[in-house]
Amino acid sequence: MQIEEYVAEKVRTAKAASRRMVSLATRVKDEALLRMARGVEDSAELVKQQNGRDVEAARQKGLSGAMLDRLRLSDKRIIGMAQELREIAALPDPVGALEEMVRRPSGIRVGKLRVPIGVIGIIYESRPDVTADAAGLCLKAGNAVILRGGSEAINSNICLVKILSEAACSAGMAEHAIQLIETTDRKAVTEMLKAEEWIDLVIPRGGKELIKTVVEHSRIPVIKHYEGVCHIYVDDEADLEMAQKLCFNAKIQRPGVCNAMETLLVNAEVAKDFIPRMLEQFAQVGVEIRGCPRTREIAPKVKKATEDDWYTEYLDLILSVKVVDSLEEAIIHISQYGSAHTDAIVTRNYFKTQQFITEVDSSSVMVNASTRLSDGGVYGLGAEIGISTDKLHARGPMGVKDLTTYKWVVYGEGQIRE
Amino acid sequence: MQIEEYVAEKVRTAKAASRRMVSLATRVKDEALLRMARGVEDSAELVKQQNGRDVEAARQKGLSGAMLDRLRLSDKRIIGMAQELREIAALPDPVGALEEMVRRPSGIRVGKLRVPIGVIGIIYESRPDVTADAAGLCLKAGNAVILRGGSEAINSNICLVKILSEAACSAGMAEHAIQLIETTDRKAVTEMLKAEEWIDLVIPRGGKELIKTVVEHSRIPVIKHYEGVCHIYVDDEADLEMAQKLCFNAKIQRPGVCNAMETLLVNAEVAKDFIPRMLEQFAQVGVEIRGCPRTREIAPKVKKATEDDWYTEYLDLILSVKVVDSLEEAIIHISQYGSAHTDAIVTRNYFKTQQFITEVDSSSVMVNASTRLSDGGVYGLGAEIGISTDKLHARGPMGVKDLTTYKWVVYGEGQIRE
Repeated sequence: MQIEEYVAEKVRTAKAASRRMVSLATRVKDEALLRMARGVEDSAELVKQQNGRDVEAARQKGLSGAMLDRLRLSDKRIIGMAQELREIAALPDPVGALEEMVRRPSGIRVGKLRVPIGVIGIIYESRPDVTADAAGLCLKAGNAVILRGGSEAINSNICLVKILSEAACSAGMAEHAIQLIETTDRKAVTEMLKAEEWIDLVIPRGGKELIKTVVEHSRIPVIKHYEGVCHIYVDDEADLEMAQKLCFNAKIQRPGVCNAMETLLVNAEVAKDFIPRMLEQFAQVGVEIRGCPRTREIAPKVKKATEDDWYTEYLDLILSVKVVDSLEEAIIHISQYGSAHTDAIVTRNYFKTQQFITEVDSSSVMVNASTRLSDGGVYGLGAEIGISTDKLHARGPMGVKDLTTYKWVVYGEGQIRE
Repeated sequence: MQIEEYVAEKVRTAKAASRRMVSLATRVKDEALLRMARGVEDSAELVKQQNGRDVEAARQKGLSGAMLDRLRLSDKRIIGMAQELREIAALPDPVGALEEMVRRPSGIRVGKLRVPIGVIGIIYESRPDVTADAAGLCLKAGNAVILRGGSEAINSNICLVKILSEAACSAGMAEHAIQLIETTDRKAVTEMLKAEEWIDLVIPRGGKELIKTVVEHSRIPVIKHYEGVCHIYVDDEADLEMAQKLCFNAKIQRPGVCNAMETLLVNAEVAKDFIPRMLEQFAQVGVEIRGCPRTREIAPKVKKATEDDWYTEYLDLILSVKVVDSLEEAIIHISQYGSAHTDAIVTRNYFKTQQFITEVDSSSVMVNASTRLSDGGVYGLGAEIGISTDKLHARGPMGVKDLTTYKWVVYGEGQIRE
């Protein structure tokens, strides 16, 4: 009962705040973002102290080194957060544009006005730097946000949200526009997901299990950021040097992220030439290869890939490799095992590029480019809230404009329906 | 167990069909739509015969006259369906446009390619003319569709879908791209709503209860078409003659639809002048008025409006009337009791129009125009699949372009992430 009331109060005040945020001037929002950046920097010692409590508790609970690293807010990460907030301030305001306005035969003028979505719920896991990022992006788009971070980061998040919210309010942001669920009770999440009259959109960011749970329980629209099982298909008409450069970059430039390559598909015509030299380069940096039977004929020392491997997002220096007979076979593999995130073809053949673009149903389809380029910054959107693997509203890299919606505006002079 | 397998087979074949629909040429889709129109006309006798069985069964079950009317497929309605399909054929193809393509600093070119959504599930109630409409719009946008109509219309729908699907396939449409759930078992709906790997979008069209059930059970993204509790606010600076014309049209031109006015808000400054003459005109056509206490001071014969009245979508010749002291009070009323569908202000004052547009959070906000104009045809979208009361993906009148999504396309010449 207590939790229900607690969440009800949060969502009610967030809704009220969102109504005030609608008409906030661009300069107020940008000033709020700059003060948030300064606030985080000025309170760096306090943030590190509270974060230290979380890290210590996590260590005692026996969390892995990688988990501890994601939880830790170093000086570098704190400066990074402030920098990100300043970059968001520098972005153009997505709200207020009147798009596609036309005069219709009756004389009415009809257009779409870009407006904030309202209240956005963000449910995420251990990384506390998401807190500043998500708050900043939601604010820029004129939304109120309710943040629900991981329980391991609770002290860091309470500290950060207090700093961010106070700094933003001092610049004129509506009170309660940035709020945190300050309890680690899981019931708070299910309560949030039932509040369809108050929250307009939920964005879960984290592992597969978190996202599945959110989708199963939510009555509110959800935009999912699922995993990336990304492929590069090296065609028989590929420039093999270019292919090697792209594959190397896509796998090792930053293996722990969703747009890294997880499976390499090689056309049989070039497999004997390409696979040995590619694998040699990967061996030099310690990439473990798991291959199909035909890959293992060419490179006998390679481990055997299981059926599960083709579905797996390793997020690590591991790569599955499969030899295919045709572009069609590559597309069928991608459609069966891929996660519709980002997939690329390397080829010189124009018709194959067009077939790949048409038939691969992924949020980003690339020709002769590294899958690592699938990113809001690279695409020109500025800071991104994540990479949507959903098809509705926003697909692929999701920038600040994707945190807005539109309303139809009709200007008339007394027109009626005849 | 049988139902589960039945639905699983439907969604599996629909997904396969959707992959073939992606690359269907515009002329094939348009020819399919024209043949569907001809098919419905040529089989009019058969359709009426099957529809007669439904109407007879409904009559024996004691359905109301209005329900029977909505169920009945007259010659006029059958011609209307064919006409609608021809209009959809005449619309531009929304698929294939490459939008916002830019060259980025690294030299890659990035743009958004407009593509079909995939598989769309449409869950609707008694009106069988929705069947042709929904199938036609989904086909035009390159989607596969799974239709689930009302149990009262089962024979009509089986007959119609057979005609539509055969006609479309004869023109080259992928088999299974138009399918009907041919059972009235409700379990089929819950099975559909769990098929998140196969169905990309669910659109419920019907009463509040239907939509609530769908939202509660669906793991698939839903675009809701809720009710319209539409308001007109007559300001103290309104042209009262224009206001009278707009209010009359908004209430009586077609009272049974979602964009008809349900509540009239009148500024106190003009209430004594406006309310008597407006009510007199409404009395002439038999509109029942339910008023607030101040309305009843001016017009003592008016019934008392209860708290429930302000929330009610009458869909009938009934209107609630409230006197308010200011624009602000009108906006607060609309935000509390409205359904965020369509709301209008009548005024000469520029600043009030801008405040109304900014602060009323509805899918359509209108100035000096009848709420009945909230319509895909009127707005220039062509045929509409409905009027979305959701904020994500599509808001307000939803045309064929809203049945598509985009994928990011990246053209490179070997670019990597530095």
